Amino acid sequence: MLEKTTKINMLYDFYHELLTNKQKEYMELYYREDYSLGEISNLRDVSRQAVYDNIKRTEQLLHSYEEKLHLYEKFMKRNQLLTTLQQLIINGSDTTEIVKVMDKLQKID
Amino acid sequence: MLEKTTKINMLYDFYHELLTNKQKEYMELYYREDYSLGEISNLRDVSRQAVYDNIKRTEQLLHSYEEKLHLYEKFMKRNQLLTTLQQLIINGSDTTEIVKVMDKLQKID
Repeated sequence: MLEKTTKINMLYDFYHELLTNKQKEYMELYYREDYSLGEISNLRDVSRQAVYDNIKRTEQLLHSYEEKLHLYEKFMKRNQLLTTLQQLIINGSDTTEIVKVMDKLQKID
Repeated sequence: MLEKTTKINMLYDFYHELLTNKQKEYMELYYREDYSLGEISNLRDVSRQAVYDNIKRTEQLLHSYEEKLHLYEKFMKRNQLLTTLQQLIINGSDTTEIVKVMDKLQKID
């Protein structure tokens, strides 16, 4: 079955602008509005299987965008470094220590 | 005529993974290797016009990806904030001042 995971929601946040309106509609009904496949099928008067296939294909598309652009991966790395940086600043750490983390941040485009 | 600008080079860096091999090849010959349209036309045995059209279309595609994903824009904003942050840290500025800039950084996904 489809998994309503946070990962897919994150990928959707990053890449939904690259999807068609129909792909976005099904994804939002299923993942954001928590409609079931059956409910979407009734709502749009298409088979449950068609809804399932569409969502499954869109998920694969989102994963393929991530393999190419790595926006989710970079976002996670960046957030981790920002948290580290915040800790270092709050603890009044050495400037050289802080600059090291900032260099790493700058290297993530 | 086509302009060999830094902006297109930046957009190419961010989005080239979304292009086809042929699009990438022409873009790299023209923008990275500094081949002329005529030289690419000779090299690939296609008309100069075909090369021009291909590159022009690819440029439009890169701009349309930027309109959707804003990776270049976010990169510029992020870099600006990182420079500000670096200055604040080097100058030994107030932690509240530093945290304000970090909050802005965190808000750019």
